[in-house]
Amino acid sequence: MSTHGIILFGHGARDPRWAEPFQRLADKLRAARGATAGPVSLAFLELMTPNLPAAVAEQAASGCTRITVVPVFFGQGGHVRRDLPNVIDVCRAAHPGVEIRCAVAAGEDDAVLDAVVQYCVLEAAR
Amino acid sequence: MSTHGIILFGHGARDPRWAEPFQRLADKLRAARGATAGPVSLAFLELMTPNLPAAVAEQAASGCTRITVVPVFFGQGGHVRRDLPNVIDVCRAAHPGVEIRCAVAAGEDDAVLDAVVQYCVLEAAR
Repeated sequence: MSTHGIILFGHGARDPRWAEPFQRLADKLRAARGATAGPVSLAFLELMTPNLPAAVAEQAASGCTRITVVPVFFGQGGHVRRDLPNVIDVCRAAHPGVEIRCAVAAGEDDAVLDAVVQYCVLEAAR
Repeated sequence: MSTHGIILFGHGARDPRWAEPFQRLADKLRAARGATAGPVSLAFLELMTPNLPAAVAEQAASGCTRITVVPVFFGQGGHVRRDLPNVIDVCRAAHPGVEIRCAVAAGEDDAVLDAVVQYCVLEAAR
């Protein structure tokens, strides 16, 4: 059976509270995918662990043959356009039997932006 | 008439393409609020202009008596918990007649996270 993992990739920060919505996001995604779906992991560019190669290695060791990396960023700057592809290349070279795909940053998605708009409207009405 | 502005506050980046979803977000928010609502502006912590004091000054000069600042960040680390309140204090001191409120980061909102979950599910199914 082919197992398909998802890795939520964030920037990372010094403050451990920063990661709280990412953990909440991972829990929500696990619930949405159901118990029989593949693993959902977090990975960070810097300041937090695991990094992406460690998260990919763990999902590959658990039997994932496909991994989708979703950058959880608003905006695609140097981190998403330059740093992330370099790390993805390292991961692909380390796991040639695993298909690793990288999505566009979540914050570029229209439905995500629409949810932010609704949040702004509600906040402004408080 | 009391005019209520909204400022979308992002980190900023060297790559001008980084700001594209923020501009799209501002356009969506203007459309959602309607033509008679107050202004919607972008402001950045660093690397891009305007900064928050400049955006607040412009909305205040245009007649806004209330301004809601929405941090467009996933996760609340040092930038949102420490840097932003300091800048908000500077803005409040400069415009004592303007009520300046700061929302929790948009990426902490459950509906925004739910939209990211849906994005991940769709991306993983591609």
